Amino acid sequence: MTPSKVYYFDNNATTRVAPEVLQAMLPFFTEQWGNPSSAYSFGSGIAQYVAYARRKLAALINADPREVIFTSCGTESDNAAIYSALQTQPGKRHVLTTTVEHSAILNYCRSLEKQGVETTYLPVDAQGLLDLEQLERAIRPDTAVVSIMFANNETGVIFPIAEMGAICRKHGVLFHTDAVQAAGKVPLDVRALGVNFLSLSAHKLNAPKGIGILFIDKQTKFQPFVVGGHQERNRRGGTENVPYVVGFGRAAELAMSRIDEEQTHVRELRDLLETTLLQTIPDSRVNGVQSPRLPNTVSISFDFVEAEALLMLLDQVGICASTGSACTTGSLDPSHVLAAMGLTPAQARSSLRLSLSVDNTEEEVLFLAEHLRQSVQRLRSFSPLAKTTPGKVAIAAH
Amino acid sequence: MTPSKVYYFDNNATTRVAPEVLQAMLPFFTEQWGNPSSAYSFGSGIAQYVAYARRKLAALINADPREVIFTSCGTESDNAAIYSALQTQPGKRHVLTTTVEHSAILNYCRSLEKQGVETTYLPVDAQGLLDLEQLERAIRPDTAVVSIMFANNETGVIFPIAEMGAICRKHGVLFHTDAVQAAGKVPLDVRALGVNFLSLSAHKLNAPKGIGILFIDKQTKFQPFVVGGHQERNRRGGTENVPYVVGFGRAAELAMSRIDEEQTHVRELRDLLETTLLQTIPDSRVNGVQSPRLPNTVSISFDFVEAEALLMLLDQVGICASTGSACTTGSLDPSHVLAAMGLTPAQARSSLRLSLSVDNTEEEVLFLAEHLRQSVQRLRSFSPLAKTTPGKVAIAAH
Repeated sequence: MTPSKVYYFDNNATTRVAPEVLQAMLPFFTEQWGNPSSAYSFGSGIAQYVAYARRKLAALINADPREVIFTSCGTESDNAAIYSALQTQPGKRHVLTTTVEHSAILNYCRSLEKQGVETTYLPVDAQGLLDLEQLERAIRPDTAVVSIMFANNETGVIFPIAEMGAICRKHGVLFHTDAVQAAGKVPLDVRALGVNFLSLSAHKLNAPKGIGILFIDKQTKFQPFVVGGHQERNRRGGTENVPYVVGFGRAAELAMSRIDEEQTHVRELRDLLETTLLQTIPDSRVNGVQSPRLPNTVSISFDFVEAEALLMLLDQVGICASTGSACTTGSLDPSHVLAAMGLTPAQARSSLRLSLSVDNTEEEVLFLAEHLRQSVQRLRSFSPLAKTTPGKVAIAAH
Repeated sequence: MTPSKVYYFDNNATTRVAPEVLQAMLPFFTEQWGNPSSAYSFGSGIAQYVAYARRKLAALINADPREVIFTSCGTESDNAAIYSALQTQPGKRHVLTTTVEHSAILNYCRSLEKQGVETTYLPVDAQGLLDLEQLERAIRPDTAVVSIMFANNETGVIFPIAEMGAICRKHGVLFHTDAVQAAGKVPLDVRALGVNFLSLSAHKLNAPKGIGILFIDKQTKFQPFVVGGHQERNRRGGTENVPYVVGFGRAAELAMSRIDEEQTHVRELRDLLETTLLQTIPDSRVNGVQSPRLPNTVSISFDFVEAEALLMLLDQVGICASTGSACTTGSLDPSHVLAAMGLTPAQARSSLRLSLSVDNTEEEVLFLAEHLRQSVQRLRSFSPLAKTTPGKVAIAAH
């Protein structure tokens, strides 16, 4: 049973559709529901709304609207970028990525390995960062694409994508970034980043689940992944999802208007949460704390506690949080991201991801912090491993 | 400018979202918007609605719910079936299909040819039908999959899928049918059809654009096409599009409840339309008239008339119709389907597709027929080719 009030601290998993976004979408279900590819005005007249939304998405990432195609989700965008890089360069059969990517990259790469594609997964250090010299050395003459996420979905750690882009350009290698978790939280500029491909997903941005975009640099050859009709200038088949396209466009406008709030209000709340947890819960550690991070994300470990048990206690009072990516829920393996950062399986299993939004309040943050303190204390009281004396408070890395 | 009243005769292009479908979806945008993969009840509680919708879709085609995965559209479903058949049978590199498929099959096959996949496109006769013996002879030891549509989107001609399924089974070849245009118009039973894969799209069924399903027979191996998280039992990555899944489920219920109406009311209207047009417009011919056809579709040719010009005249009074698939609008080539049936380019360019729904009325049909009669007469009066004497009325094939 869900308590009536929901304290939502899992905005990296998904976000609420904004009322403005829903309002923008509504006419396109039962009133203006024609097929934008149709010749008559009831259909073709709808194409202008698709074009408007495309301009708003392009503006969000400083792209030309013609460089933006709508896809069905971030996962499809990620798959499509890698697929196209391989297809347009038939002699190149190597993909270079990292150990901490989303499953949309990692599992796709594994499926490509079965088809003879070679892959390299770059490791990260204890702070979740990559060694740029190691990246450069790993680029091979047959590397078709380098794919590195903008910000980690579990820890919020931000990679220096512009510097990585420069390295890729220097070696003439295509570069893709999965910016799904970054969009709306930090400014994105495809020109400054120097990327060939960039993926976004609407449902991290207060628009619905089931639509994404792929930015394709206008100089970059593209081979479609979903192949059918002439939609999206022959780059993505399938009748346009007009309501979601319109909603995503509206969400892009909202995201641009509140990017400062993410950097101030959300960051302040996140810092308050982190400080309070570290001060009140002994043997707690923030993962990736020394790295540049998204303003809304906390990954925190509580020694001697099973985070799954913690989630259940939090759920009882209506608090939504997670142990990592929702896309890997149900897996018995501890987080691959935290493992890559050197956490032991026990440490990884004691870790919680808390991700905030502009809708969170200070009151909610303090409610969460207090319930976490009580819940950790309660679970530790059952644990034979937990020290009976309070341990030291640490914000250092593992 | 669109006239206030829309006479919609293009239901094979897309359909209006039913008010019941919109109502079913609404709570999942701004109220129950959690991620169904999340551990807490606000998220995981939503999985039951996804499961309910999956059962309704399964019931529509007499499948087990575990045999149904949600995709982003019919095009993705079509691509995924072919892709999986090739991936799970690495030694088999031949795809057998027809010349009259939707671009989701034809253009995907063409993209596979660049990767070394061999393809055979079976021809159709003047009535749009395939020679079953020719189909059987075209199956090769290295045929990975046979993909044949259930009903043609332009002419409504229905293929004998169950007989074709028996041929494929006899030869141990996987069989896929694109049933996007058939769903809701004629009963579908995957067991009786003997198919391994079947594609459906929601937006032909009064649900939104941007969601489809792929039926995957439980005995059939499957390799995912969109690869990411564990969603859809590891068969389709990407966060579930919960509102559209729920809406599609509701649309499946509606479709089942009115399938008889398609066979009576819609068929009667279609027959009324066809008879009226043939009786009042000389030199007109219904394409595929001798074949089994969907109850809602008319493909009709008016000699000496450019159908594109006809569409513009119809649009002026609010009538929506098309020259063929919306997915090929903008192409300068005449319909590949009508060309495959032996129509000359001029005949193909004189052809209109009219596709009805349960929402159409007799009054609308007579309005359409009368405006078509006037418009054809008007256009012919400008044509040097048109005979000044009325020609014979023909319902026979070309």
